[in-house]
Amino acid sequence: MHTLGSNCLLFLGTPQPVAVRRVSRLVATSSWSNLHAIGLIESVWDQKFGTPRQGSLAPDARANLTLDLPGGLCAGHALEGIEEFSHVWLIWAFSLNKNTATNSKVRVPRLRGRRAGLFATRSPYRPNPIGLSLVKLEGVDGDTLQLSGVDLVDGTPIIDIKPYVPQYDSPLAMPGGLGESSVRIAPWLEEVQTESLEVDFSPAANRALQDQKGALLCDSEVFRRTLVQCLESDPRPLYRWRRERTACSSDYQVQIDGIAAHCRFERAADGTERVLVEQIFPAST
Amino acid sequence: MHTLGSNCLLFLGTPQPVAVRRVSRLVATSSWSNLHAIGLIESVWDQKFGTPRQGSLAPDARANLTLDLPGGLCAGHALEGIEEFSHVWLIWAFSLNKNTATNSKVRVPRLRGRRAGLFATRSPYRPNPIGLSLVKLEGVDGDTLQLSGVDLVDGTPIIDIKPYVPQYDSPLAMPGGLGESSVRIAPWLEEVQTESLEVDFSPAANRALQDQKGALLCDSEVFRRTLVQCLESDPRPLYRWRRERTACSSDYQVQIDGIAAHCRFERAADGTERVLVEQIFPAST
Repeated sequence: MHTLGSNCLLFLGTPQPVAVRRVSRLVATSSWSNLHAIGLIESVWDQKFGTPRQGSLAPDARANLTLDLPGGLCAGHALEGIEEFSHVWLIWAFSLNKNTATNSKVRVPRLRGRRAGLFATRSPYRPNPIGLSLVKLEGVDGDTLQLSGVDLVDGTPIIDIKPYVPQYDSPLAMPGGLGESSVRIAPWLEEVQTESLEVDFSPAANRALQDQKGALLCDSEVFRRTLVQCLESDPRPLYRWRRERTACSSDYQVQIDGIAAHCRFERAADGTERVLVEQIFPAST
Repeated sequence: MHTLGSNCLLFLGTPQPVAVRRVSRLVATSSWSNLHAIGLIESVWDQKFGTPRQGSLAPDARANLTLDLPGGLCAGHALEGIEEFSHVWLIWAFSLNKNTATNSKVRVPRLRGRRAGLFATRSPYRPNPIGLSLVKLEGVDGDTLQLSGVDLVDGTPIIDIKPYVPQYDSPLAMPGGLGESSVRIAPWLEEVQTESLEVDFSPAANRALQDQKGALLCDSEVFRRTLVQCLESDPRPLYRWRRERTACSSDYQVQIDGIAAHCRFERAADGTERVLVEQIFPAST
């Protein structure tokens, strides 16, 4: 094991010999490399702006996934038994990317731009623009899955759904697993989890909140919680955060489930930041 | 939430209204649907016969993944920082499938053929033949990942590598998670986890074991453990298990890391089963 230096050819530490390379069989790619969507997700996240970086950051966020399977497959049959699981994996495509990875290292937004190897991150800019999200299965209605804790923009193509099985998917629950001590993540990811901005609402926003009704978030309290979850993790993209970090305030508008929220990031004299939701109104379609 | 009946058009229970369907944006598939391998795995599992159904069933199984990235990307840079994680996800292709899903329901091998909707299983026969495996990262050596707990056949094309992050990937570790009570899996999966066959070695097999040396499993004790892990979960495909379930013995040969093991499944008068490893010899290439 070694730590990679900044130059690709420079290896530090003591290299271990790689086991003798075997001749892996040649693989024809034609049978698997052409994927198609099994459905497009309908999500509260109307735009990439404000969509959380992970579903766990917004447990109240809702989405529906109605299957549209290729010929011969019956969505109702294909989902049979899935309601017995509390959580499912979505494998999906980063369809809003204009291009895939052009850099081997990426700037991590929550690290304020520190760089890491793309495979050490969940960056959308990867050789294959495929995403993986663990979401909560709230219910099944015919060929539609009702989901929460979703970090996918409305219209994202879904490639696969798999049940969450701790024995397969958690190092802690695996038979013969070594328990919590066997799981290790990069220290910089630990740092990231603790940040959280205070979110306040203006009186006008509070009043307007009562009158809005989303398609998926039809309860105003759930809408408020989802909006707070969106804002408290600072959804601004890195380039905006950099530009605005010394300003005492900056405006931000986000649209969730057909409802727009006009907000302001404010920095107090002591350096602490908060987000004020100033106005809430129906988004123009 | 409802239980789906055996007819796709028959819905039992009280259907919940699906939230108003929104017009999801049209998605061009050309930018994401053409995937390519970022490397072919070199695995101890030489053939589909004997390859465990999940990596957690064979924690000692080893594999190497040497990256072969498209133009302009440096594997060493792309892996930078990944050594700080103990586990990684592999997203890979079921490349040995001759075809993808033709049935909406699949027979679950470990359930001895009971059927479930394909999305309620990890069956390889899916609309998109994409697999998901959590594996242990043992080390990084240049552009090669050294892995264990792998359930992939040698030569499997890898599509993506992502770090395992409990806060994203475990319902228990998510911020605001409800703890263990929030995770629910199908009862039939609970049943499956407990089965385990006794594995014995003949004196000849025991002697031969000392002389064999695999490419990835170069320690004979680790080879023995991997072979036991392979056999104790009964790797026979469903059609063989059905044919042989009333026989008092049946032969089975498996090849792991270039070494062949000739085995016999034996059934005692009281119905208990065990596996006897009779002979071990270098596999003919």
